[in-house]
Amino acid sequence: MDPRTGKPRERVAAEATAEEVDRAVRAAHGSREALADRAVRAAFLRAAAGLLEEARDRVIETADAETALGTTRLSGELARTTAQLRSFADVVDEGSFLDVRIDLPDPGAVPPRPDLRRWKVPLGVVAVYAAGNFPLAFSVPGGDTASALAAGCPVVVKAHPGHPATSALCASLLRRAAAGAGLPEDVVVLVHGFDAGVALIRHPLVAAAGFTGSVRGGRALFDAAAARPVPIPFHGELGSLNPVVITPAAAEERAKEIGAGLAGSTTLGAGQFCTKPGLVLAPRGEVGDRFLDALAEGVAATGPAVMLDHRIRDAYVAGVAERAALAGVAAPVVPGARDGHAVGAGVLTVDAARLTGDGHRLLLEECFGPVTVVARYTDREEAAAVLGLLPGNLTATLHTTGTDGDPDPDAAPLLAALVPLAGRVLVNGWPTGVAVAAAQHHGGPYPATTSTATSVGATAIERWLRPVTYQSTPGHLLPPELRDGNPLGLPRR
Amino acid sequence: MDPRTGKPRERVAAEATAEEVDRAVRAAHGSREALADRAVRAAFLRAAAGLLEEARDRVIETADAETALGTTRLSGELARTTAQLRSFADVVDEGSFLDVRIDLPDPGAVPPRPDLRRWKVPLGVVAVYAAGNFPLAFSVPGGDTASALAAGCPVVVKAHPGHPATSALCASLLRRAAAGAGLPEDVVVLVHGFDAGVALIRHPLVAAAGFTGSVRGGRALFDAAAARPVPIPFHGELGSLNPVVITPAAAEERAKEIGAGLAGSTTLGAGQFCTKPGLVLAPRGEVGDRFLDALAEGVAATGPAVMLDHRIRDAYVAGVAERAALAGVAAPVVPGARDGHAVGAGVLTVDAARLTGDGHRLLLEECFGPVTVVARYTDREEAAAVLGLLPGNLTATLHTTGTDGDPDPDAAPLLAALVPLAGRVLVNGWPTGVAVAAAQHHGGPYPATTSTATSVGATAIERWLRPVTYQSTPGHLLPPELRDGNPLGLPRR
Repeated sequence: MDPRTGKPRERVAAEATAEEVDRAVRAAHGSREALADRAVRAAFLRAAAGLLEEARDRVIETADAETALGTTRLSGELARTTAQLRSFADVVDEGSFLDVRIDLPDPGAVPPRPDLRRWKVPLGVVAVYAAGNFPLAFSVPGGDTASALAAGCPVVVKAHPGHPATSALCASLLRRAAAGAGLPEDVVVLVHGFDAGVALIRHPLVAAAGFTGSVRGGRALFDAAAARPVPIPFHGELGSLNPVVITPAAAEERAKEIGAGLAGSTTLGAGQFCTKPGLVLAPRGEVGDRFLDALAEGVAATGPAVMLDHRIRDAYVAGVAERAALAGVAAPVVPGARDGHAVGAGVLTVDAARLTGDGHRLLLEECFGPVTVVARYTDREEAAAVLGLLPGNLTATLHTTGTDGDPDPDAAPLLAALVPLAGRVLVNGWPTGVAVAAAQHHGGPYPATTSTATSVGATAIERWLRPVTYQSTPGHLLPPELRDGNPLGLPRR
Repeated sequence: MDPRTGKPRERVAAEATAEEVDRAVRAAHGSREALADRAVRAAFLRAAAGLLEEARDRVIETADAETALGTTRLSGELARTTAQLRSFADVVDEGSFLDVRIDLPDPGAVPPRPDLRRWKVPLGVVAVYAAGNFPLAFSVPGGDTASALAAGCPVVVKAHPGHPATSALCASLLRRAAAGAGLPEDVVVLVHGFDAGVALIRHPLVAAAGFTGSVRGGRALFDAAAARPVPIPFHGELGSLNPVVITPAAAEERAKEIGAGLAGSTTLGAGQFCTKPGLVLAPRGEVGDRFLDALAEGVAATGPAVMLDHRIRDAYVAGVAERAALAGVAAPVVPGARDGHAVGAGVLTVDAARLTGDGHRLLLEECFGPVTVVARYTDREEAAAVLGLLPGNLTATLHTTGTDGDPDPDAAPLLAALVPLAGRVLVNGWPTGVAVAAAQHHGGPYPATTSTATSVGATAIERWLRPVTYQSTPGHLLPPELRDGNPLGLPRR
């Protein structure tokens, strides 16, 4: 379906049958020994980045036609994707992800300690469920795939139905890079179709899964993963409200700047980011009004945007209408349907006191798209009471002011209330834009993620590994990584 | 119930009602802020070890009366338990478990990188389900409790019904140690009863669980943890066959030594260890016969033993009878009921070829107690075929010989077949006896454990933590652990 016209496009792929899923998983499983060589893995990831760059114009054109995300955003996303592939190649080379720990024997310990040498080995075939809102960076060549391959796990990707042609193109590039690096092409296999995704999570040879998507879909797959005769780890990123708290002192100091910044973060990419700020606690009174005016001005100035597909558009239009209809909810900028297949961004406001009642819980659920809800609070206690009602989040943001010598009195207590809610807390910034870095954490309490792991950054590789300890094993039977003298020069403890 | 006489003993504790479980969890939850101070946590763990040692005679006497494990074994277990508490205090002091990672800003990265500082924070209240076979080391004052407290998580322990008095005594000592260290006593709360255990796993304020026990009980709790509105991590150790493979060259070299060693490992503590070797692949022919003779001699020389309780005893007697009745199974030493409430250890043998058929799958399941099954194989391929049928294990053991210059030709391929089956592989040793060490891994593919984590050793603390990244946060709002200049002198990356 063309998101800009709503017209059906040519059919690019068939949905995989259960037999085809079985063949895909077995093919991937058969390739796992070849991935054991870390140098080959790293070369493969770099080659994949290179081929994606070579095919850049075609990749972006294909993705734009399927997602309407635009060439600027998609160029950035491709650069992020190739940088991510290369960063995981660096992680493979550096080797600390193997978490090598060696305990030499100690017969005097209680109980006596033999020679113990631990490292981490790949889990096996990883099922990756691609996201709709990032056709590259969280899809076929994205972080789940890159981190699983870096760990030494073959990948079967379940394509997102929103961009099947982009998925097929990227899979073919990854498979070509694998062949070029001397690996079987089947280290990456692509399947399409809803039923294929269900068959995949149940397949006995699938050892773990990564998912980015909705709470409903992710929870169904999580449940299926847990219900298997042999349960498997399911690392799902499901949904996040991404609360923002603005202290009175921050609003006093820079109401306009915060309002403009929030408008940009909320409407970026038509609000189709998992880290879009969806609930903002802003002070009542004049400083809060100034902030709200700047926010409304910024959002109103945003042109209509085409969302990823008609289903997401319809959900957004219905979601904002349902929220706007709640008692006491105002809409300084009315979100909803616009001409053609576009939608308009918007701002909703409500008294914070309403949120602690039962009737307004909907405002504490994510609404995917370019809208944010501003809740006006009277004092820190009221703000903290609202925060206490929130589910888990990927991010939580505090806007404050002050310094060590002259601190904002609300900053420390509100930050302390935000940390339990999220995997990443930001001060005086915006949550959209997730850096790929060693210290990144993109995850958070449920439903933000279904595990304590991150899907972005170097430690995302930890999801696809399990420890194995060798006890009293002669050197010639140990992996070189664990031998005396550290022949591979790895970081070891 | 007195395991040595089968007579009921005085009632020591009431089963907790749902309301009492709720109060227990809320009390523990209310104590979590006090655990934030790492120095206090470490002092508390050391004080707990000290109080257990002071109460040593009473603890051992109480545990022996309830479990019949004997004072020698229980003295060793108490020493292991106190050493474990102290080792987790050392882990807390050392601080690398916080996994601090700092990325300084890099505006030129794709996407641009802000200041990112990551560490790990405690998950919240941990539910610990105590084991029956280790009334100390895997029970109230055991590894799950110690590692959770070390992580900063309050603990609600569900006592094992086999040793309620020992549980109550140990809980009171831990609570006394907490008070002595300036912590609320409720950092450790004890509840009794099956229904209490179910209520505990469903409680909204329980954030994670640790379990050591049976496949049936563990799977039921795992399923309940996964089915919650907010699923929580469930780290369960459920069951393990602990395969052993003896190569022809090893049997040729030291058949008697291996047989005697295996007899000791199988019958140790009446075979009531999760790492008891339950399936042994031994070569056919004369060298294998010599090994089997030595094994049978050693097992036959073992006196009758009292198991933990009558339920476990009945399950053992029924389990060995069912296995011995299978076609082609012989019993060089017949296991089963003995006079009084004791059981006898035994050895069963079978052709490896039988195991690949459908009728003998029972021999590939754990039989808790002092029995092992020896499967005789013809060649390496047949041994590997049997290994290919096994579920996940805590341990897998290879007995081999040779050196780097003169290797056993079977060693490397058989070790390669064992690694995928287990979390710890041993060469020329015995799996019973699990050292508490940084490089230990006590866990393995399902059903050995329900996660990729270990329940023994320094990294067991990782189960109770989640990462949080601070983005662009001014120094005065950062935890000291993440500030510039590393004021606490922590290991950081």
